[in-house]
Amino acid sequence: MFETARAYLDLVVFDVGGTLVQEADPTTPVADLVARPIGSVVQDLADLAGVVTLAAATDTATMVEADVRALLATVDLDRPLTAVVTSVEVGAAKPDPASLLVAMERTGVHDAGRVLFVGNTDRDRGAAEAAGCHYTEVGPDGAGRAVADWLKVRVGASVDAAVASLTEPSPEVAQAARDRHDQLTKPRGALGHLEEIGVRLAAMAGSERPADPYPAAVVVFAADHGVLQRGVSPWPQEVTAAMVAGFAAGTAAINTIASTSGLEVTVVDVGVATPVVTAPGVLHRRVAAGTADLASGPAMTVDQARAALDVGVDIVRSLVADGVRCVIGGDMGIGNTTPSAAIISALTGGDPRELTGRGTGIDDTTLDLKREIVAAAADRASGLDPLAVLAEVGGLEIAALAGLMIGGAEARVPVVVDGVIALAGAVVAHALAPAARSWWFAGHRSTEPAATAALTHLDLRPVLDLDLRLGEGTGAALAYPVMRAAAAVLRDMATLEEAGIG
Amino acid sequence: MFETARAYLDLVVFDVGGTLVQEADPTTPVADLVARPIGSVVQDLADLAGVVTLAAATDTATMVEADVRALLATVDLDRPLTAVVTSVEVGAAKPDPASLLVAMERTGVHDAGRVLFVGNTDRDRGAAEAAGCHYTEVGPDGAGRAVADWLKVRVGASVDAAVASLTEPSPEVAQAARDRHDQLTKPRGALGHLEEIGVRLAAMAGSERPADPYPAAVVVFAADHGVLQRGVSPWPQEVTAAMVAGFAAGTAAINTIASTSGLEVTVVDVGVATPVVTAPGVLHRRVAAGTADLASGPAMTVDQARAALDVGVDIVRSLVADGVRCVIGGDMGIGNTTPSAAIISALTGGDPRELTGRGTGIDDTTLDLKREIVAAAADRASGLDPLAVLAEVGGLEIAALAGLMIGGAEARVPVVVDGVIALAGAVVAHALAPAARSWWFAGHRSTEPAATAALTHLDLRPVLDLDLRLGEGTGAALAYPVMRAAAAVLRDMATLEEAGIG
Repeated sequence: MFETARAYLDLVVFDVGGTLVQEADPTTPVADLVARPIGSVVQDLADLAGVVTLAAATDTATMVEADVRALLATVDLDRPLTAVVTSVEVGAAKPDPASLLVAMERTGVHDAGRVLFVGNTDRDRGAAEAAGCHYTEVGPDGAGRAVADWLKVRVGASVDAAVASLTEPSPEVAQAARDRHDQLTKPRGALGHLEEIGVRLAAMAGSERPADPYPAAVVVFAADHGVLQRGVSPWPQEVTAAMVAGFAAGTAAINTIASTSGLEVTVVDVGVATPVVTAPGVLHRRVAAGTADLASGPAMTVDQARAALDVGVDIVRSLVADGVRCVIGGDMGIGNTTPSAAIISALTGGDPRELTGRGTGIDDTTLDLKREIVAAAADRASGLDPLAVLAEVGGLEIAALAGLMIGGAEARVPVVVDGVIALAGAVVAHALAPAARSWWFAGHRSTEPAATAALTHLDLRPVLDLDLRLGEGTGAALAYPVMRAAAAVLRDMATLEEAGIG
Repeated sequence: MFETARAYLDLVVFDVGGTLVQEADPTTPVADLVARPIGSVVQDLADLAGVVTLAAATDTATMVEADVRALLATVDLDRPLTAVVTSVEVGAAKPDPASLLVAMERTGVHDAGRVLFVGNTDRDRGAAEAAGCHYTEVGPDGAGRAVADWLKVRVGASVDAAVASLTEPSPEVAQAARDRHDQLTKPRGALGHLEEIGVRLAAMAGSERPADPYPAAVVVFAADHGVLQRGVSPWPQEVTAAMVAGFAAGTAAINTIASTSGLEVTVVDVGVATPVVTAPGVLHRRVAAGTADLASGPAMTVDQARAALDVGVDIVRSLVADGVRCVIGGDMGIGNTTPSAAIISALTGGDPRELTGRGTGIDDTTLDLKREIVAAAADRASGLDPLAVLAEVGGLEIAALAGLMIGGAEARVPVVVDGVIALAGAVVAHALAPAARSWWFAGHRSTEPAATAALTHLDLRPVLDLDLRLGEGTGAALAYPVMRAAAAVLRDMATLEEAGIG
């Protein structure tokens, strides 16, 4: 019920009286108060506490934290709460947001956009608004169910809004950029593919002299895959979390490549099955602890897939709000070439056995097994709508990558697509929102056969062809300097006329 | 006789008595002095003054510049001298280098390595040594002939020494780098061609964790081509000089691309036919005012070719001495795909007509004409030794590029080779010094057919394939960030053991 909460929330804060427990007459002496939980809140908060941090913010005339905790402890509602803040302690009652802000402070949550306040009065709503938090009202089933209902509405809202608001780069500016290329101090067309990249960047930037697509961010989405238990990869599942630690430490391939290209790396746990390090640059957005085994049933629920799509969209929105002007999506997930091949086969119609590659490097026996699994999965998914394909045979990082690609298009920033995992996300994103494709560049051609099928399907020409098959965004990061150069050519070169030639 | 002087010298300083004119008895009163030129110095200095700056530095007990100039004016030896410095004026006689250093100061020449002092005594030699200048002694034919004799010995000395001292990158370090790649936190071989690039950089750097090949320099060699008069290109010759001005202004393609990759651009006039701008970042090393028409005879003399090779070698030596750790050679020269195709055909045995491309974009009629010219040139050059091929059908910028590639190998720094013009230089350099090739990377695959023939001949795998055909070093500059990333991967990634995996 709360599984997808982490995609949207770091903290849920509850009012107490009328929200967690029945409201008492305000004249009741503290010693006489009896806690009566509303609805299924006791079990629900125990469940929810396993996903996000919980706190309480309550108005009382006399009680401090210990008093409230003592009361709630009588019905087992104390333990789930990391912090309890009362109006007496902060010196201000709602709708003043002080108690909410202190609850955030005490739980270390700084982004009000990832906080939900659950209350039962207009004063509660006012406090949430003043703090910039989300708000929902408790119902007869209790505060936990209110959170679940809020999530139900929230799941998919970002991706749905992004898809609905997609625009295309400007064809007029593209033509102006083509014309400008022909006037620059070089023979017409002499910069080949670089000119095409420049024209597209100009159309995206809305100027035939496009700004530098800098700064740019690499977002590596990490998740695990139930199908790993079938033996499709020689690497154990724990490597996913270990690699997340490597990204956080700055010692993985993507970090070293990004460091030479001026790229910042963010890592997002969107579905790792084992514990993930808490460190700067690591975002916790775990939609589920890995997918189910796609060989025996759906890998995810549709809600999980949509929540992971939202994670991708929301992260791009946040990055672009912070000034990022180009995004690169990367992946980490042991076993993830299997769902990628299945998705690409299902959505492009390509032969699943031919599209199955050796991934990190498997032997012939494992490859045969993997081919059978991909073929069965692709067969099951064929003909389903794109979201159902994603849920049936996909992965959480693939869904988040699809979200990132849609989010980049919504935000009108160029997206550089990496190898086969990112391309699986791109194929899904394209099926969900064909217009998004206009904002994408293919960073490179992976050696995985499904990558070439996806590139052909999407009609994207890769910038690089270096026989890479690592993922993490490495191929896209290597291509990024070419994007900057393509923009610089159009922006900064002199025309023949300016140079007095011709 | 002095044509190649600019390859080596910015300034020639002459002693006066006994060097330019017969020595007078030191007791002769100034008023009684009569200037008697030695050998053919009057005509020779008039010729030499058209190539490099000239000055005089003389020891006298009483005379100042005006006195010396008045005396030399009687035999027309005054006009060629930009500066005349006497020991009286600087307060120190040779072997003190003061008069030489003042002559350099007054002529704006700061690099003593590009100054030749011509004298006739051990004191003169001592002054040159103290100033760090070259020195040669006048003979009976006069000071001009002494310069010519010095040049005769000097021409080719840099490239000969470089070829003689070539070494290979370390095969042991290459193996250590391969082993390290297999221990890093990624599947074996997952970074494909990037791993090969890293291994080669490691072997060059002498460490399996290679230093960043930074800073790197782009050197654009500019020269004109006599064959242009045959109509092989629609662009007029003056564009070469205009583009040099563009490089100096920072508005050409290579500047904009270099600016996004942290590359410095230097432009070298090694043979432009028309006047070239004097500006920061422009080096004047004009071996000749363009080549002769290769369709009607040799494009250059062997000495010109060797002087241009020296220019390339010397510039790399100077850059590496200044801390540069990777060099990229670029070209600018209207008409230069014609000599490039001829060279590549002659040295690889490829069909000259098939290797002739459209260069900056010529029509079918021009292409037919160009094919005939290339075929005839390649036929004439086939079977000649590499230096003779270069002289017969080459270009001055092609020779300088060959020099740069040999110089990079001598200096043990990686060289990133650009498109078809640079590849023509590479094919010559390889023929002259096969070991040099081990230090080269192919930046990209140009659309010119001769480029692919050269890449195959040299067994170099291009980093990029973006349909470029511009030159200037653009393709190599675009590939440069990939080199840095390849080194960073080996240098900075954690091993599986360090990450606690496997």
